[in-house]
Amino acid sequence: MAAGLARIDRYAELIVQVGANVQPGQLVEVIARIEHVDVARAVARAAYRAGASYVDVGYSDQHVRRAMIKNVSEDLLSWTPPWLLERVKHFGNVNAAIVALTGDAEPELLADLPGELVGKARMKEIGEELTRQTNEGLNNWVVAGVPNKGWAAQLFGEPDVDALWDLVEFCVRLDEDDPVAAWRAHVRKLGARADRLNDMQIDSLRYRGPGTDLTVGLLPESRWQGCESVTANGIPYVANMPTEEVFTTPDARRTEGFVRSTQPLVLNGQIVKGLEVRFENGRIVDVRADVGADAIRGELAVDERAPYLGEVSLVDGESRIGQTGRVFFETLYDENASCHLAYGSAYAEAVEGGVIDGVNVSAVHTDFMIGGPRVEVDAVLRDGGVVPLLRENIWQPTH
Amino acid sequence: MAAGLARIDRYAELIVQVGANVQPGQLVEVIARIEHVDVARAVARAAYRAGASYVDVGYSDQHVRRAMIKNVSEDLLSWTPPWLLERVKHFGNVNAAIVALTGDAEPELLADLPGELVGKARMKEIGEELTRQTNEGLNNWVVAGVPNKGWAAQLFGEPDVDALWDLVEFCVRLDEDDPVAAWRAHVRKLGARADRLNDMQIDSLRYRGPGTDLTVGLLPESRWQGCESVTANGIPYVANMPTEEVFTTPDARRTEGFVRSTQPLVLNGQIVKGLEVRFENGRIVDVRADVGADAIRGELAVDERAPYLGEVSLVDGESRIGQTGRVFFETLYDENASCHLAYGSAYAEAVEGGVIDGVNVSAVHTDFMIGGPRVEVDAVLRDGGVVPLLRENIWQPTH
Repeated sequence: MAAGLARIDRYAELIVQVGANVQPGQLVEVIARIEHVDVARAVARAAYRAGASYVDVGYSDQHVRRAMIKNVSEDLLSWTPPWLLERVKHFGNVNAAIVALTGDAEPELLADLPGELVGKARMKEIGEELTRQTNEGLNNWVVAGVPNKGWAAQLFGEPDVDALWDLVEFCVRLDEDDPVAAWRAHVRKLGARADRLNDMQIDSLRYRGPGTDLTVGLLPESRWQGCESVTANGIPYVANMPTEEVFTTPDARRTEGFVRSTQPLVLNGQIVKGLEVRFENGRIVDVRADVGADAIRGELAVDERAPYLGEVSLVDGESRIGQTGRVFFETLYDENASCHLAYGSAYAEAVEGGVIDGVNVSAVHTDFMIGGPRVEVDAVLRDGGVVPLLRENIWQPTH
Repeated sequence: MAAGLARIDRYAELIVQVGANVQPGQLVEVIARIEHVDVARAVARAAYRAGASYVDVGYSDQHVRRAMIKNVSEDLLSWTPPWLLERVKHFGNVNAAIVALTGDAEPELLADLPGELVGKARMKEIGEELTRQTNEGLNNWVVAGVPNKGWAAQLFGEPDVDALWDLVEFCVRLDEDDPVAAWRAHVRKLGARADRLNDMQIDSLRYRGPGTDLTVGLLPESRWQGCESVTANGIPYVANMPTEEVFTTPDARRTEGFVRSTQPLVLNGQIVKGLEVRFENGRIVDVRADVGADAIRGELAVDERAPYLGEVSLVDGESRIGQTGRVFFETLYDENASCHLAYGSAYAEAVEGGVIDGVNVSAVHTDFMIGGPRVEVDAVLRDGGVVPLLRENIWQPTH
C-alpha cells in the first residue's frame, strides 16, 4: 500500500512538474473521470505543493452522460450549460494550468446506444472555446493516463491494475532513477528530429500499405514540433505523457486517397475497429468500419470542418509504447506507438503564422492510428525528391 | 447484486419523486461527494426518467479540500471561484430542482488541521446566495443520506454497508410496501402537529435538563412547519429524507441561557463532542466542548449573524430514527431523532411575512442536537400559561 501510494505521488509530481509545469500562484484545473480519483487527489496535492492558488477538480461521470443520451430529446443533447462555458472561459482568461486525466474505465459503456446520438451529445461551444484557447496558447496543459480496473481488464482480460501501473511507469519513464532528467533528454531527442524534418522542406507525406494509399499535403508554413510546447506568455510544458511523436499541421485542403486504421480506437464509449476512410480534396468523403462507423460519422457531422485533417504525426517502433507490443485501447498511448492522423482542429503552434489559410478549425479533434510495420512513409520534398521516413517501423536516417 | 441495485433505484425514485419532486423540463442539480457515486448515478437516471432537461452531478472531494487547507495562504481559504457562484445563481434563476446527498465517508478527515482554518475554508458568497434562494423559495430541494463504507464504519466499527442500508431503508420508509403512500401519511401527521402548535400561540420554548436551562423566544409571526414545503411557484417538496421534525424560526434576539448538546456532531471533517453553548441577548457568547470546539468557533466567526439562532425543531422518541436507538454521526439523521437548534440562517418560509426583524440571515446554518429523555421541553404561551411538550421524549397531548 505504501509503495502504491508512493508511485501515485511520484507520477503526480511528474505530471505537475514536467507535464503541465504548474507555476506558483496559478489556478489549476484537473479534468478527471470519477474512476481517476486516487491520481486526481495526488495531482491536487502536487499542484498545491507547487504553489497553485486553487485546484478545481472536475469529476465527470460517463454513467450520468449515458442516462442523458438515453432520455433527453435530440435537441437537448448538444446543450451547453452556461456555467460550464463560463468556467472554461475563466480558465483561459487567467491562464490556468490544465491537467486532463484519461484512461477509460468502461470503454464500451455507450456501445449499445445509437452512434449518431452519442456523436451529437457534445458541448460544441466548449469545444470551440477550447480550440481558441489552444490556438492562442493561453494554457500550459498535459494529458496523462490513469490506470484503473476497467482499462486493465480491456488490456489483460482481467482487472490487473498493478500490471497496468507497471506498463504506465515504463511508458512515462517513471522507471528511471531520475525521471525528470530522462524527460529532458527525451524532449531534446524529439526536438532534434523535428528540426531535421523542418530542414527537409517537405511538400507532402505519402503512406502506402495494406488498404492505404494516402497523400497528406503540408503547408509551406507547417513546422514540425517535438513534445515541448510553450504558452504565449512563455511557460514550457509537455502536453502529452507519454509522447513519442513529432507532429505538424497539414494543409487541410490537400489530403487525397484512402487509409486503413491499424489499431482500434475508443471513441465516446464505443470501440471503433477496422476503420477505413477516403479523402477527396482534403475532406473525408467515405467512412467504413467493421464496428463503430457511426461514432465516427456522428463526430464528423459536428461541424463543417470536422472532416478535414488537423494533425499529422510520425512515430517509430522505438517508442516505449511500441516496445510494449500492446494495444492500449487508449488513444494517448496507442497514438504514441504508431504514426497517426487527426481529423478536426489543428494546432496553430505548428504553423508559422498561426491560423492561416489551410489550417483547420473545428470543435472536434480525434486521432486515429495508421502506422505499423507494413506501412511505408515517404516525404515528398518541394524539389520533387522522395525521401523514405519509415520502413518496417524503423526511422530512416534523415540528413 | 440485483437486489442491491433495485434498492438503490427504489431509493433514487423516492428522492426524486417525493423529496425534490422533480418536474418535467426542470434542470436538476445533484450535489454529491465522490463516495456517493452509485446513488448519484441512480438519482440522475431517476431524474431523467422524471423528465429532467439536464442533470448536473457535481462531485466534490474532501481530499482535495484537505490539500487546499493544508497548503494555501489564509487569505485564499475563503476565495469563491466565480464560475461556481455563476453556477449556483443559474440554478436559482431557472428554478432548478436540487438533490443534495450526504453521508460522510471520512468524518474525521480534517480533524488534525487547525479548526479555525477549516472553519474559514468556506465560500461565503455561495452560502449567501443559497440563503437568498432558500428564502425566496426558488428551488424544490431535498437532502438525503447515502450509505458508504466510512459512514458504516463510524456506526458499527466495521464497514458493514448492507447493515447501514437496512437502517436507512427503515428510516426513509423504503421498507413499506408503498413508500410513497407512507410518506403522504407521514407528511399529514407532522402537518397536523405543526397546526396544533400554531394554534397554541407560543411565546417561547423552555428546555431544562442536565447542563441545560434555555429559553428560546419566538416571534408572533413564527409559524410551525411540518415536513412539506412549497416553492414560490407552487411545487411541493420534502426537503429532508428522513424527516421527523416540526420546526419554526425563532426570534433571533430572544435566546437566553445555556444548553448542552446531547449527541456528537460531525462538522467540517471533525467530530464535535460534549458541546456546551451559552446565549446572551440571542447571541452565542461562550462555546465549550470536550472535542472540536474550534470547529464551532470557526463557523461562528464566518459572519456577524452566525452566532444567532435560525431554527428550533421538536422531535419525539417515536421517530423512526429515534427507534433505532443509534447515533448516526450524520446530522440529517441525528437531528431527526432529537430536538435540535440551528445557529445561523433562518428559514423565511416559517415566518409570516418572510425576512422580518428578528429573522436571522447568515451564510451558515448548523444544526445541533439538544433533546433526549432527560430534557423537558415546555411551551410558554403568550397568556403566561405553561404547557409541557415533551417528557422523557414522549410527545405530550396538545389541544
